[in-house]
Amino acid sequence: MSPRDEARAPGAPAGNISVVRLPNSWFILSTSGELGGKPLMRTLQGTPLVLFRGEGGRPAALLDRCPHRNVPLSLGRVVEGQLQCGYHGWRFDAAGECRAIPGLTGETRAKARCAASYATREQDGFVWVYSTPGVEPTSEPYRFPLLDAPGYSSVRRVVRAPGSLHASLENTLDVPHTAFLHGGLFRTAKKSNEIEVVVRRGPDRVEAEYIGEPRPKGLVGRVLAPGGGVVQHFDRFLMPSIAQVEYRIGQESHLMVSSAMTPVSDWDTLIYAVVTFRLPVPHWLVKPFLTPVAMHIFSQDSRILRQQTDSIHRFGTEMYVSTELDVLGPAILRLLRSAEREKTAPALEAVQETRMKMLV
Amino acid sequence: MSPRDEARAPGAPAGNISVVRLPNSWFILSTSGELGGKPLMRTLQGTPLVLFRGEGGRPAALLDRCPHRNVPLSLGRVVEGQLQCGYHGWRFDAAGECRAIPGLTGETRAKARCAASYATREQDGFVWVYSTPGVEPTSEPYRFPLLDAPGYSSVRRVVRAPGSLHASLENTLDVPHTAFLHGGLFRTAKKSNEIEVVVRRGPDRVEAEYIGEPRPKGLVGRVLAPGGGVVQHFDRFLMPSIAQVEYRIGQESHLMVSSAMTPVSDWDTLIYAVVTFRLPVPHWLVKPFLTPVAMHIFSQDSRILRQQTDSIHRFGTEMYVSTELDVLGPAILRLLRSAEREKTAPALEAVQETRMKMLV
Amino acid sequence: MSPRDEARAPGAPAGNISVVRLPNSWFILSTSGELGGKPLMRTLQGTPLVLFRGEGGRPAALLDRCPHRNVPLSLGRVVEGQLQCGYHGWRFDAAGECRAIPGLTGETRAKARCAASYATREQDGFVWVYSTPGVEPTSEPYRFPLLDAPGYSSVRRVVRAPGSLHASLENTLDVPHTAFLHGGLFRTAKKSNEIEVVVRRGPDRVEAEYIGEPRPKGLVGRVLAPGGGVVQHFDRFLMPSIAQVEYRIGQESHLMVSSAMTPVSDWDTLIYAVVTFRLPVPHWLVKPFLTPVAMHIFSQDSRILRQQTDSIHRFGTEMYVSTELDVLGPAILRLLRSAEREKTAPALEAVQETRMKMLV
Repeated sequence: MSPRDEARAPGAPAGNISVVRLPNSWFILSTSGELGGKPLMRTLQGTPLVLFRGEGGRPAALLDRCPHRNVPLSLGRVVEGQLQCGYHGWRFDAAGECRAIPGLTGETRAKARCAASYATREQDGFVWVYSTPGVEPTSEPYRFPLLDAPGYSSVRRVVRAPGSLHASLENTLDVPHTAFLHGGLFRTAKKSNEIEVVVRRGPDRVEAEYIGEPRPKGLVGRVLAPGGGVVQHFDRFLMPSIAQVEYRIGQESHLMVSSAMTPVSDWDTLIYAVVTFRLPVPHWLVKPFLTPVAMHIFSQDSRILRQQTDSIHRFGTEMYVSTELDVLGPAILRLLRSAEREKTAPALEAVQETRMKMLV
Repeated sequence: MSPRDEARAPGAPAGNISVVRLPNSWFILSTSGELGGKPLMRTLQGTPLVLFRGEGGRPAALLDRCPHRNVPLSLGRVVEGQLQCGYHGWRFDAAGECRAIPGLTGETRAKARCAASYATREQDGFVWVYSTPGVEPTSEPYRFPLLDAPGYSSVRRVVRAPGSLHASLENTLDVPHTAFLHGGLFRTAKKSNEIEVVVRRGPDRVEAEYIGEPRPKGLVGRVLAPGGGVVQHFDRFLMPSIAQVEYRIGQESHLMVSSAMTPVSDWDTLIYAVVTFRLPVPHWLVKPFLTPVAMHIFSQDSRILRQQTDSIHRFGTEMYVSTELDVLGPAILRLLRSAEREKTAPALEAVQETRMKMLV
Repeated sequence: MSPRDEARAPGAPAGNISVVRLPNSWFILSTSGELGGKPLMRTLQGTPLVLFRGEGGRPAALLDRCPHRNVPLSLGRVVEGQLQCGYHGWRFDAAGECRAIPGLTGETRAKARCAASYATREQDGFVWVYSTPGVEPTSEPYRFPLLDAPGYSSVRRVVRAPGSLHASLENTLDVPHTAFLHGGLFRTAKKSNEIEVVVRRGPDRVEAEYIGEPRPKGLVGRVLAPGGGVVQHFDRFLMPSIAQVEYRIGQESHLMVSSAMTPVSDWDTLIYAVVTFRLPVPHWLVKPFLTPVAMHIFSQDSRILRQQTDSIHRFGTEMYVSTELDVLGPAILRLLRSAEREKTAPALEAVQETRMKMLV
């Protein structure tokens, strides 16, 4: 029984658990800095992988199992750009081909002796790995926006979310929970403003635009938008696992939080977050506050995701009831399920747009 | 696979494991004192429940899962007699109906948004919960006898037995093990007295009466029955989970131990025990000894139940061989299995009586 | 699902996991010294057993479960050469027959009340148990060679290998890994010598003879074979679980390491190792070095076996690719599988011999 089946098995009709396994998709498996001279043990969607730097320092990713006696290759070492198993010393190159078998008098290379290899890319300071082995990727990884744009600063963090990829994405892009879970930080529980939400669905994305959202109160509001101005707020999901939150307040403030999520296993998600911003106050003044506030918010979200995951395991199944306030979650799940079945979403020639009301 | 199936699954023919799940039955889920202003997380027969005090302070019990995103309601808080989820702030009343969804502009109440609710009763200082949700109970909880009878005193304790409901019931009402496990306390291993045992089976109970049991030796005997007199000893099982041990020695001593057992999960049983007694010595003199002695006995039983449970798990099945000394255990299991299948026991118009001999 | 199926179940076609359960085979379950006046809890191929000394101090082995209420007999005590359960005091003799039931007025002995019993032997300071209960053994346990031979000394050790019986046997008898895992101790990674390997397969054994192996370098070589001389090296597997490594260097040095392996469970193997030797230096001088060196080697092997076992569990299956350097492993697995199916190996009238080359 695969871990996937296991996750779904306990009495649940298939599809009742928001767990997906995506083929042909790019995910971040480490930062550039983490991948040095030693092999890195990683797990992607439950599959053990090993990363190492092959010839020319280029990242390589193999299935983390020596074909000979199945010892993890990640427990060996890198020798001359090849990965050497610690048991019998077999060596593999970046393509997974076996290049040395100590003691053997005959030919070393053979198809059966290859380790499955995965395409990699190193860009924006991250090592990306393609989730299907042995194939040429048909797409390229996500590019983080505005990284080098003039006037913008960035902050990066990696955090671990104890929930499924879908639960983590929905949580990151969900507005109504903020008034409760993060009460006081973004919004208060006393709703008074009815705003309009425009939802736009495309074949590889879904976006919510919040129209009429009030400017933050007090000091924060005056700092972010001293001249007043309209709030523009977008929440976006981009396949396969990017959650993007964008705020513009007036002419001067622009904030973009991109979270590239990596499904380590069915109920464990790594979030590589990049916060990029332009603000009308000195950035050195903002940065010291940004991380503690973001980590505080995330620790609350992490606690709730843990509770949600534990509850799904306790019951052995998931039973969600959605309302129109669940603006993006169900749409995200549909896109993930389509990708899992290797279908593109039902061809939407034009982007589909719907509108609704919400109290914030 | 439900936890129930899981318990039975390992190679065991169904019925080979003494685990039952009883519908339509009352169980204690907390003492009155434990249930205050905060929600209580409880488990009944493997099902997570939340207790809280609703309007007027009356106990309420719901399935411990928010219908929206499945976070445990027990991790939220009680607001104005309603239970509020900690994720998005949905609120539920004692009947499980959804009464608030922050942010929603339309109607809140809807059938799909209800949390399953369980009937409750608060009596004798305990909160009882009915094991089938969404129905009107067809019975009332057990009443502890003699609680307010003149001349009687009571002591209460809650202990955890690491065994199935059946194993815990059988252990509590089993006579032969006392000479070994609790050797010296009740009886000694040197058997000399042949006594008669009368077993009476009814549709919702089974009782053993021990006739000819010798009066306790030494000081204890003289204290309990200074004027001598006959020992009357009854062990009773009352559906669904009450074990009652009654002793009368002479005219003056009367001891009644009622253990109301709650099957938390298949192999974990909570015992709410009430010891009620009338003795010819001052009760303030007896009470300090009662609890340490009872807890000593229970710690020995608990150890054996743990060993028994571990052994059943190690072998993946249960293989009992009973003799006529197993006076009540097999009869209790038959009653539990009938209740599980929602049948009443084969109609016994009159109570069935059998007799046997035992060495004590 | 039996533990065996469990081991094989995760997606693996039967036979894809090198786990076997051997009937009708002798295994060591304790040293003579470990088995004193108290019962010993042991596990053999996943089955809980209890050892105790019955009448005349002879070792007895029973299934570790009281037939009455399934409490482990190993948690009781030995009384007059019988094993007494700690719950109700039932007693069993060395043949597993029930000899006492306290409280019972009628006959005690009955077939259903017997505990399954296993044949035992005590020899060479070890307690051996036959893996099929209730039968007369058709063979006798392995005899450790040269234990009392004049001029020989012995050292004994018991170590735990976190791998399957097969993986542990293969590891113990595998030559190529020594240059890497134990690099520097036996051989170095710089291969220069091509040697010949003769493999001889019989119905209950397989042996590899290494011809042309160079004498150890430096001090060790001069100590072991001061007069020079030829190296003779044999690695042998003897059914059901003996790994034997024999070295002769010149006329004077003779070293024999016999490892009798006990499959505690599918992935946990106990190794009862006896090192017997005759050397041209005083044995009191050698002994202090022997144990630390052997334990250092074993700790490296143990780490690799743990990694291999964990990897097989992570992937839920085993995927080995062998080369001709895997001289004994595949042959050992074939012998184990035949024994598991209670077939003798395909009748080899004469011993089959094959030859190959290896770089050491």
